[in-house]
Amino acid sequence: MEVQQVLHMNEGVGDTSYANNSAAQRSIITKEMHIVEDAILDLYCISFPKRLSIADLGCSSGPNTLFLLSHIIDTIEMKCRELSHPLPEFQMFLNDLPGNDFNTIFRYLLPDFYEKLNEEKGVGLGQCFVAGLAGSFYGRLFPSKSLHFVHSSSSLHWLSQVPQGLHNEGNTLNKGKIYISKTSPPSVFRAYLAQFQSDFSLFLKSRSEEVIGGGCMVLTFAGRRSSDPFSKECSSQWELLAQALNDMVSQGVIEQEQVDSFNVPYYAPSIHELEAIVETEGSFRLDRLEIIETDNSNGSEDNEESFLFGKFTSGPKIAKCIRAISESMFADQFGATITNDLFQIYEQHVAEYLSKEKDIHTSLVLSMTRKG
Amino acid sequence: MEVQQVLHMNEGVGDTSYANNSAAQRSIITKEMHIVEDAILDLYCISFPKRLSIADLGCSSGPNTLFLLSHIIDTIEMKCRELSHPLPEFQMFLNDLPGNDFNTIFRYLLPDFYEKLNEEKGVGLGQCFVAGLAGSFYGRLFPSKSLHFVHSSSSLHWLSQVPQGLHNEGNTLNKGKIYISKTSPPSVFRAYLAQFQSDFSLFLKSRSEEVIGGGCMVLTFAGRRSSDPFSKECSSQWELLAQALNDMVSQGVIEQEQVDSFNVPYYAPSIHELEAIVETEGSFRLDRLEIIETDNSNGSEDNEESFLFGKFTSGPKIAKCIRAISESMFADQFGATITNDLFQIYEQHVAEYLSKEKDIHTSLVLSMTRKG
Repeated sequence: MEVQQVLHMNEGVGDTSYANNSAAQRSIITKEMHIVEDAILDLYCISFPKRLSIADLGCSSGPNTLFLLSHIIDTIEMKCRELSHPLPEFQMFLNDLPGNDFNTIFRYLLPDFYEKLNEEKGVGLGQCFVAGLAGSFYGRLFPSKSLHFVHSSSSLHWLSQVPQGLHNEGNTLNKGKIYISKTSPPSVFRAYLAQFQSDFSLFLKSRSEEVIGGGCMVLTFAGRRSSDPFSKECSSQWELLAQALNDMVSQGVIEQEQVDSFNVPYYAPSIHELEAIVETEGSFRLDRLEIIETDNSNGSEDNEESFLFGKFTSGPKIAKCIRAISESMFADQFGATITNDLFQIYEQHVAEYLSKEKDIHTSLVLSMTRKG
Repeated sequence: MEVQQVLHMNEGVGDTSYANNSAAQRSIITKEMHIVEDAILDLYCISFPKRLSIADLGCSSGPNTLFLLSHIIDTIEMKCRELSHPLPEFQMFLNDLPGNDFNTIFRYLLPDFYEKLNEEKGVGLGQCFVAGLAGSFYGRLFPSKSLHFVHSSSSLHWLSQVPQGLHNEGNTLNKGKIYISKTSPPSVFRAYLAQFQSDFSLFLKSRSEEVIGGGCMVLTFAGRRSSDPFSKECSSQWELLAQALNDMVSQGVIEQEQVDSFNVPYYAPSIHELEAIVETEGSFRLDRLEIIETDNSNGSEDNEESFLFGKFTSGPKIAKCIRAISESMFADQFGATITNDLFQIYEQHVAEYLSKEKDIHTSLVLSMTRKG
């Protein structure tokens, strides 16, 4: 699978679209907001630059796309008013892979964004400039020393490729599974960790050339409290999807070999693994590392954030949410005709799982400063 | 008609697409190339900036989109090699209205562009950064003092709106015509000129805030040698399309009132009109003003540039070319169902016209420097 070509959130605004099934990601952004606020204010108040250049990496195309950027402008605008400072210009870059639907951003999301900015904040068109930039963040995207602030939410758990070596001719390491599982041999974990180390190091190195000294990044993505690589914290979705795929093998709809040779380009690192990579790469100072928990099985605590999963609707909602972010990969491997059935079977497994335990998803938030 | 919402080149890669019918625009870019080369080299060799920020305004989405940017990189690369200078970084912005197909640029055109850049010039991904930016160039698009060079080809003859006052309740100034015509009253010309003066002044004012002192612009668009506003140089297409529309009125397919109330948001200024606006606005020094002629009726002189109109194929080719750039407007006013017939009738009028006279299209090239 060529991740750059294949991976994209479900398009459009239909029932299975990412736009309509991204409440979980919105909830995460809401929970990391105070860390973004602190970082951008610290950064801004050091030198009060006339222009703030900001990049959002893995922006997707939906209601979350401009949510955080809009909040950043609010934050700076309030500080400027407090200090009677003129508002800086904002240069914003929205980045995602080339398969992302940038037309929707430009045609529908941005005009609304500009209109609200103008109405609510009096921030005119000559103040905020939003560009789209397609490409993998595992490599250079921006000119040298051109960014003040980088944000990325719910994206960096996607690897640049499926770890190599999991499936060679006559040698299938992760039979019947699609991610690290309790029954996977240790070499599967080692292959995933090595890929993440290589990808995340390359991410840091690329950003270190683009972010000015003293510039900041706030990165939020799936991760583990636990050092145990088989922890359920961030992998239950893949375990249950593997079960659904194996059901379809039993039904004769897909081949066992297709499942054995498929693994997701995803990794949820532990806190310790992350700290070690940041330290070894060396360009950024890790200022803060916090944990966000999202309980997908019960909506009570997220009531205010429209991430409302009642006990009877959690199964379908979780299934749709996972479908919206991963369907393109399953369609690429197993054919687009089976994905409807796959996610229906998956939904049943989710419901069964939730009857026994909670589905708590852990994200890690890293706030970092470019050294030098 | 809301020009920002309605006007876009025909999408896709089909028979009537802009991508397949933009040889005329390519020919114009080829002919203005030496002026762009001179301007960018003059600019570069004054201070050898480490980063060149370049914007292409009205980039469209087709084979022409990256043609000139690619040539600019070649030009600078050769100069750097000659001087044993390190190549600067290139930050490129591709701009067009939000209706432009940016997805095609990001998914198909840019990957090819980067691959060729790497193969042919050894210019890697960490050297050239191309972003898309949707919005009207009749207003601010970029942060203050952030651009070295601005280019725009075959775009600035499109106005921000149809001149007001051409069609008010009970008062239709330009009956049976869709642009300034010999039978139009002088008030039609005055309304078009006033709209162009207002739009082009706003364009210059917006760019004057974005382009650094000493930065350059090369702008190419339809214009007239002649001071006569009824000159055929740049208006024969609208005269013939008006004839085709009037034929359809006679056939009872569309209403006379629909034609009377329709005027194109287009203006081809004279040299004198342009010079006056540039001088009055005052931010830019006009270094060069040249004339490009494209003979659409006979391909001989353009043989090398793939703008090959043989005497039997000129009619259909011109009709397709004009259809590709203007169909969206006619569909908006008269309904999408009539455009096939409209452009077939138009094609016959073009053939008849070409049997009597040449179809020579005049473009003006302005090379300007930001004062201060």
